[in-house]
Amino acid sequence: MQFTSEQRLDDGIIEREFTLGEIPGTLWTPAAAGSADSAAPTPLILMSHNGGLHRREPRLIARARQSAACGYAVAAIDAPGHGDRPRSAADDQARAELRRAMTAGEPVDEIFESFIGPLVEKTVPEWQTTLDALLTLPGITGPVGYGGWTAVGIRLAAVDPRITAAGFFAGGYVPRAQREEARQVTIPLLFLLQWDDEGNPRQRALDLFDAFGSREKTLHANLGGHTGTPWFEVEDGNRFFDRHLK
Amino acid sequence: MQFTSEQRLDDGIIEREFTLGEIPGTLWTPAAAGSADSAAPTPLILMSHNGGLHRREPRLIARARQSAACGYAVAAIDAPGHGDRPRSAADDQARAELRRAMTAGEPVDEIFESFIGPLVEKTVPEWQTTLDALLTLPGITGPVGYGGWTAVGIRLAAVDPRITAAGFFAGGYVPRAQREEARQVTIPLLFLLQWDDEGNPRQRALDLFDAFGSREKTLHANLGGHTGTPWFEVEDGNRFFDRHLK
Repeated sequence: MQFTSEQRLDDGIIEREFTLGEIPGTLWTPAAAGSADSAAPTPLILMSHNGGLHRREPRLIARARQSAACGYAVAAIDAPGHGDRPRSAADDQARAELRRAMTAGEPVDEIFESFIGPLVEKTVPEWQTTLDALLTLPGITGPVGYGGWTAVGIRLAAVDPRITAAGFFAGGYVPRAQREEARQVTIPLLFLLQWDDEGNPRQRALDLFDAFGSREKTLHANLGGHTGTPWFEVEDGNRFFDRHLK
Repeated sequence: MQFTSEQRLDDGIIEREFTLGEIPGTLWTPAAAGSADSAAPTPLILMSHNGGLHRREPRLIARARQSAACGYAVAAIDAPGHGDRPRSAADDQARAELRRAMTAGEPVDEIFESFIGPLVEKTVPEWQTTLDALLTLPGITGPVGYGGWTAVGIRLAAVDPRITAAGFFAGGYVPRAQREEARQVTIPLLFLLQWDDEGNPRQRALDLFDAFGSREKTLHANLGGHTGTPWFEVEDGNRFFDRHLK
């Protein structure tokens, strides 16, 4: 893990850009984390995004900084085809077709299987490699939580026992493999649902929530479309992590 | 409104028993509320319960005290047939039949219409009379929120513009009249659902959440039966009221 830049933000949070092989990422840490005079452990949140977004999208940065202000180290990486990563013409075409079909209300399962399915397969090992590296840094002790992209989170929570709690965002559509793996997820969950999410059918999201094997799982649903999640859910998410990571 | 007892609890909260005509109630207020040296307004939460329970049920008292510790005046009354109120043999029989039918998984709509429907009709005016009296007390200024029994809350929020925000508890079953009135409710809502609530069918609760006219409404669902709501939902409820009443 090579750090390529470091700055102290006005709220005292340290923001560092890194690369790990071909994976670009950002790490936000509370001011005290890893300093010689701090013996306090710093739990870690892996903040994962999909949709071809850049990890430096303003609302993703705002979420990361809010969690860092609550005492968490927060890491974001750009998955293949996202942000700073090369993006193929085939990727662009698949995303465009996915958006078109969703907007038209057509079935998207097959596009999901052929495009998102393999992306999950590639992204999960990258998160595990990133986690290996993050946990060697001074002051970043874990425990480790996961927040964001549902399909990747399901696989990661199913295969990596270091993940202690997870917040999943509005994932009605996940590939078939993750629908099956949901019952293998047994850690505490906070599942966020946007009630009118144009891209994630409500009933499928409710069915997915029902399928998780966790004994402690909470669903939060709010009115509005995919990007309309109210800000107080970010605060609720941090309190969820407070209950399980601190 | 006649106060019949007053005590200061060890957390500084003042707990007063009252009667208002034939209505028995309890009022919890933060230590500072209404004192000569406090100019701060004290918002009010009407904490409503059903199920024939007594307002002094330990988990109801714990909820009230938690809200009072957050700066709210909290009032509870025993509705007709509840707690300190006279209860007829017919009431007892109707409740027993309702429980039996729910446990047996039989349809309970007709018992609901004939028993709960009229109880809602009687209880709502009692809450309004109680609210009139509470708002004349020194230091209790409002704004006013409502928490608890769903059917009574729907009617109250539909007819009384003093109610500014409401938290509804696990009400899949409400009488037909309240299913219709739900679209007239337009205040911010927090709707609590127990995912495995033996007495409130999940799909009906989801349909009710969908029906409310409010533009700002949030659903929280947790695993477990009717009385299994985790304690952190009490804290979430107070933060919901903080956003709308303070």
